[in-house]
Amino acid sequence: MGGDPHKENVMSQTRGDVWSPVITPFGADLAADIRRFVAHCQWLVSHRVGLAVFGTNSEANSLTVGEKQQLLGALVEGGVDPARLMPGTGQCAIGDSVALTREAVAAGCAGVLMLPPFYYKGVSDEGLFRFYSEVIERVGDSRLRLYLYHIPPVAQVPLSLELIERLRDAFPGTIAGIKDSGGDWSHTQALIDSFAGDDFAVYAGSERFLLDTLRAGGAGCISATANVNPGAIAGLAASWQVEDADDRQQALNVLRDLFERYPLIPAMKAATAHFSGVADWRRVRPPLVELDDERAATLVSSLEEMGFRMEGLGAASHG
Amino acid sequence: MGGDPHKENVMSQTRGDVWSPVITPFGADLAADIRRFVAHCQWLVSHRVGLAVFGTNSEANSLTVGEKQQLLGALVEGGVDPARLMPGTGQCAIGDSVALTREAVAAGCAGVLMLPPFYYKGVSDEGLFRFYSEVIERVGDSRLRLYLYHIPPVAQVPLSLELIERLRDAFPGTIAGIKDSGGDWSHTQALIDSFAGDDFAVYAGSERFLLDTLRAGGAGCISATANVNPGAIAGLAASWQVEDADDRQQALNVLRDLFERYPLIPAMKAATAHFSGVADWRRVRPPLVELDDERAATLVSSLEEMGFRMEGLGAASHG
Repeated sequence: MGGDPHKENVMSQTRGDVWSPVITPFGADLAADIRRFVAHCQWLVSHRVGLAVFGTNSEANSLTVGEKQQLLGALVEGGVDPARLMPGTGQCAIGDSVALTREAVAAGCAGVLMLPPFYYKGVSDEGLFRFYSEVIERVGDSRLRLYLYHIPPVAQVPLSLELIERLRDAFPGTIAGIKDSGGDWSHTQALIDSFAGDDFAVYAGSERFLLDTLRAGGAGCISATANVNPGAIAGLAASWQVEDADDRQQALNVLRDLFERYPLIPAMKAATAHFSGVADWRRVRPPLVELDDERAATLVSSLEEMGFRMEGLGAASHG
Repeated sequence: MGGDPHKENVMSQTRGDVWSPVITPFGADLAADIRRFVAHCQWLVSHRVGLAVFGTNSEANSLTVGEKQQLLGALVEGGVDPARLMPGTGQCAIGDSVALTREAVAAGCAGVLMLPPFYYKGVSDEGLFRFYSEVIERVGDSRLRLYLYHIPPVAQVPLSLELIERLRDAFPGTIAGIKDSGGDWSHTQALIDSFAGDDFAVYAGSERFLLDTLRAGGAGCISATANVNPGAIAGLAASWQVEDADDRQQALNVLRDLFERYPLIPAMKAATAHFSGVADWRRVRPPLVELDDERAATLVSSLEEMGFRMEGLGAASHG
């Protein structure tokens, strides 16, 4: 029974779920550093954070499909529990989305987080419906749990409530939830009011909305800064009904505010480099640019003033 | 001497150049129809239009890298002159852009048309400079002629004049031109004023600006509707100094206006289906949606009223 993937999926949808869109480490030649990636994932899991690898904060679209397949394989071989994996598999081309999604399902991942195709803008709900339908039908596997990825500030292709409803009706049991990275609480609230339940998990795209999401009936958050602050975020998510929950939410927000004063991905990588002692963590792939030395030093000194730490990270990163 | 690729490249940059971002034919299973693709390309070349395959109008980002490699190979094997080829090779991931660009250079293509990475928005010139530099250096081939692709309405990642200047300085001889699909003539004019010359070709992204571009010192156009109206567009480009040039530009605009009343890619495919007698041409890949029967019929009847034809297309499409 423990190996039943459906049971695993249900478990992963318990309210109080936190996932990290895992940052991707690169070497001097910009190649992904597989060993460091696996170690970082293991560190996150040890802080009760799930692995939404290949997200926006993973620089996933700066990786080829082949690179993602290699990294996913390394995680599974490295002993990471697939029930803690929700890889991003949405690509502009149906064939690429199908290839990655098939691999995720075969590996026993809890689900996949799927961007809409993001090159064309102003596309219709009908076109988006056909895209997702085509991918689901080609994957053709009842084990697939597909989480939609709504991130209009970046993808610039929003997913409407009507589209979500149509997809849920067409693929009950497969369309399992959504990540809302729109940054607008009223939209997350509308998603929860319309769809949230045992069969549909609504995740906020930032821990800033964690408590609001859980109180309203959502599942939790899938948040960039869960890469650097996993313990505190997962801690609040796991015990959100405690008396001092609002204070703890406020403490999460203070750290989030600090990171948001910088370009988020380079800032998280600079912090990870400092606290792990692995300078290579600073590196990003173009078109992103790493923080310069001065800004990295300012961020680190702000973090140290706050008493911020990334406990156990160094050891894990040196794996 | 005739085989010198540099000579071919110089020839392809003669003012009065028209390229078509070739529409891609799909079969019932949405697979690319290779035979029909090669035939359409041969038909375009017979009308003196170059082949900017894998552009926005080609649904290039709805194709996998492997599919594009297969289609490019089929064109070369099918006897299409590589000097008439300018494939789009810009992908979000450096590794993908390098793979496609290498293949285009190895095939002897006149050049490549390269989108910036288009997932992240608001990226810096420094990040874009690093992206293009990395691709050029990894391809590492002096035969590469790279045409930048500025299409902010779709990619939402503009290429600034400062970035272009910096790339030209860093890679003289390689950065060979730009396609401006911004739809704003004053920007095309600024590009021509700043950069146009024997070593830098400025192409308008629509034949609507063909005469203005040529008169100002630009190279020509790379235009969607060159898929359906190649002869007239290439004809004006080749003889733009004739007395009735403005009337001929006006006639091109009337046809362009008609197509722009519809979603452009589905409309061009509907017209091609009708005039070739191959109904499969209607098909697009999600997230695009084909014209419904009623709109397709309205478009076709407008075209027939205008006396519009696509001469020789049927025969070529049946190959």
